[in-house]
Amino acid sequence: MEIVVVGGSDAAISAGLRARELEPNVRVKLLVADRYANFSICGIPYWFSGEVTDWQSLAHRTTAEIEKEGLELLFEHRATSIDAERKTVTAIANGESRTLPYDKLVIGTGATPIAPRIGGIDSPGVFVLHTMDDMLEIGKYIDDRSARSVLIVGGGYIGIEMADALASRGLDTLLVEAAPTVLQTVDPALGIIVGEELARHGVHVTCNVRVQTITVASDGRLAIHGSAGFETVVDLAVVAVGVKPATELAQTAGVMLGVSGAIAANRRMETSVADVYAAGDCIETWHRLLERPTYVPLGTTAHKQGRIAGENAVGGNAVYAGSLGSQVLKVCDQVAGRTGLRESEAIAEGYDALTIQESYWDHKVYYPHAQRVHLRLTGDRRTGRLLGAQLVGHRDSQVPKRIDVFAAALHHGATVAQLSDLDLTYAPPFSSPWDPVQMAAQAWERARARGE
Amino acid sequence: MEIVVVGGSDAAISAGLRARELEPNVRVKLLVADRYANFSICGIPYWFSGEVTDWQSLAHRTTAEIEKEGLELLFEHRATSIDAERKTVTAIANGESRTLPYDKLVIGTGATPIAPRIGGIDSPGVFVLHTMDDMLEIGKYIDDRSARSVLIVGGGYIGIEMADALASRGLDTLLVEAAPTVLQTVDPALGIIVGEELARHGVHVTCNVRVQTITVASDGRLAIHGSAGFETVVDLAVVAVGVKPATELAQTAGVMLGVSGAIAANRRMETSVADVYAAGDCIETWHRLLERPTYVPLGTTAHKQGRIAGENAVGGNAVYAGSLGSQVLKVCDQVAGRTGLRESEAIAEGYDALTIQESYWDHKVYYPHAQRVHLRLTGDRRTGRLLGAQLVGHRDSQVPKRIDVFAAALHHGATVAQLSDLDLTYAPPFSSPWDPVQMAAQAWERARARGE
Repeated sequence: MEIVVVGGSDAAISAGLRARELEPNVRVKLLVADRYANFSICGIPYWFSGEVTDWQSLAHRTTAEIEKEGLELLFEHRATSIDAERKTVTAIANGESRTLPYDKLVIGTGATPIAPRIGGIDSPGVFVLHTMDDMLEIGKYIDDRSARSVLIVGGGYIGIEMADALASRGLDTLLVEAAPTVLQTVDPALGIIVGEELARHGVHVTCNVRVQTITVASDGRLAIHGSAGFETVVDLAVVAVGVKPATELAQTAGVMLGVSGAIAANRRMETSVADVYAAGDCIETWHRLLERPTYVPLGTTAHKQGRIAGENAVGGNAVYAGSLGSQVLKVCDQVAGRTGLRESEAIAEGYDALTIQESYWDHKVYYPHAQRVHLRLTGDRRTGRLLGAQLVGHRDSQVPKRIDVFAAALHHGATVAQLSDLDLTYAPPFSSPWDPVQMAAQAWERARARGE
Repeated sequence: MEIVVVGGSDAAISAGLRARELEPNVRVKLLVADRYANFSICGIPYWFSGEVTDWQSLAHRTTAEIEKEGLELLFEHRATSIDAERKTVTAIANGESRTLPYDKLVIGTGATPIAPRIGGIDSPGVFVLHTMDDMLEIGKYIDDRSARSVLIVGGGYIGIEMADALASRGLDTLLVEAAPTVLQTVDPALGIIVGEELARHGVHVTCNVRVQTITVASDGRLAIHGSAGFETVVDLAVVAVGVKPATELAQTAGVMLGVSGAIAANRRMETSVADVYAAGDCIETWHRLLERPTYVPLGTTAHKQGRIAGENAVGGNAVYAGSLGSQVLKVCDQVAGRTGLRESEAIAEGYDALTIQESYWDHKVYYPHAQRVHLRLTGDRRTGRLLGAQLVGHRDSQVPKRIDVFAAALHHGATVAQLSDLDLTYAPPFSSPWDPVQMAAQAWERARARGE
């Protein structure tokens, strides 16, 4: 059997590896558009910060390791069309067209950056950041120009991580966000804390401003104009306002699209076209809590979905359990993240949503270096069901895995009250007899009982 | 209504606070045997290490804070008998007997240290460590004698924490454990790692040795003799070989005993005697996985059970969800812990237990300071059900909350395979796209598929 996988990132590699793990006799070819297979693009900011010195180390696996698992990597093969009837996929490689037959096809084309409507966005010195090539190009530009200032357009997680990284590298860093607070994946009250942390580390954060035009001055620097009278001049700009699913290839096969224009794939990663699977940032994602497809492109999700696509491509029957939108990022010395629904999402979904916000010590305060962790917990007043949690706290405060305790509870449909029942570990350097997760749950229960 | 609570530690205070929270009109009196209410005895080792300088800060709450919540603290009231028919409890205070009536009684008498059969165990310079008074007495002894060497008898969590603390304070520290490895709450393969960590930090660890006699030399130092020719001379010895439930008071009321001679209390914390509740280290504890009572004295459990006793004493109907034996401790720069059943326990319980051990990076290795985390995962081959997990890793590796992710899954009766379905957070400084929790689950699944 011949499996062709289009893509070289998380979903694609996971699909190929899983297929070979279960069926060692299957042939798996991966069409990789660039020269980088299985790179951790989430690691890009840490190369800019200097915490990662060798960009090659950003690979989850080396080419040799991937090939050792029996995957055939066809680099610089840009897939352009699928003939679903003949079961072939055509790619351009070295300027020549090449057609490959498949028994099963897995589409893992990922997403592409959204280009916002900004005059002069194609000017030299204005970059998007999505691929290893983007990274190297920006790095070269900074070095070649000895760039000293940068504008980040967009205060989502990539924008924030890049602002953190470039400021820590010593660049004069401005971050502009159109919304009232950065990190719109958490509620504004926590987004404010994130913005403050960036500011404390030298990032100039401006919210409520839309960048409107970018013009290149005679010295090659960029003059930026935005709403509310925003004006500045910087050496370069990085635009990170989100991504959209890359579906052009899938559409050549007649694959149906779904939420947000992403490929409609079911929980077995099957598309509307026979023998064509899809996974990762190019598809819509089943939301475990909402019980319907959403568009939540995340690396963790891509790995899970790719694994399912690979399993099912070789005759398996794996079913995706669904996403909770769990995510986390480092913001200077803090960490911010969430799982499940934030307050406004819960309300929009029609839940009788109650949200509380509290802060607690990450461990017993008598033990050195105790830090406050800010928690927002959202539950449904009517049923008592846990709907989501958002945390911001110090990078040493186990914030990511505390979110994961909420994620595990959410996965199992727990009520808020059940969080108090969890037998969590305790030692004074790491927690309290009631973990902050549980103290927040009890605060929510009290607020609900008070009729809030 | 008049509630009398016997005890001043976790279970007792939790019961009193919960009763007052739900019924502000109830009178709650606590009979506290010593002068220390609501102290975090788990914090004692950090006073010895010098990380906590003011022992008073070890209080979870000050006396004023407790009294502000409406609890009446009767210090140095040692309860001696209960008359269940007349509903009174008698205590000795200042050498005088005092009898108090109750409508509801909560027994939170805790546990007492086991005194092993060692000749000369009552010699001056040989201590147990369970109360604040014990702590202060040992501290004074070390100071008064300018003690430079100490023997710890017992390699359980108190022995290990004290060895860690006293070695870091500069004492020549010996730890002797009768079993082949320290920390018998984890499997030997991990216990070895814990022992090595202690040794790396200057603790002389001797396993497979039973201390047999302690004699006081003419200079007041202690000559220790043990099995296998063990001999040493030290300035003092701390015996920490476990605890037993303190049930003498309960027995005066005719309360039935259960597992390990602990007070038999049901999941509502009711004893066999009407209107008498019990909670914490003095009672047997419902095990969520085994679905039967066990004896697992832990502070987290005491807090939960006390809260339930307090709620039910004022007419509530709270039910204890059960313990998973979740626990964690700092061992020098490492952390060790577990939840659920360890391998030998699972086998003894008749499960078709399969255990795997793997080690993984705590986060992406390209990001600085990645550390290996050792995981042991036990599941039932037949049903695929998760039975337990044990972790040892660096103190910065989020080990406690990683155990808690397992604990949350165990709470909900998850299979091992379901761990891979969890939507856990990921960013390169904190994890991998598959968290070590999930990589271990997949390793277990592969081992099971291979027929191991």
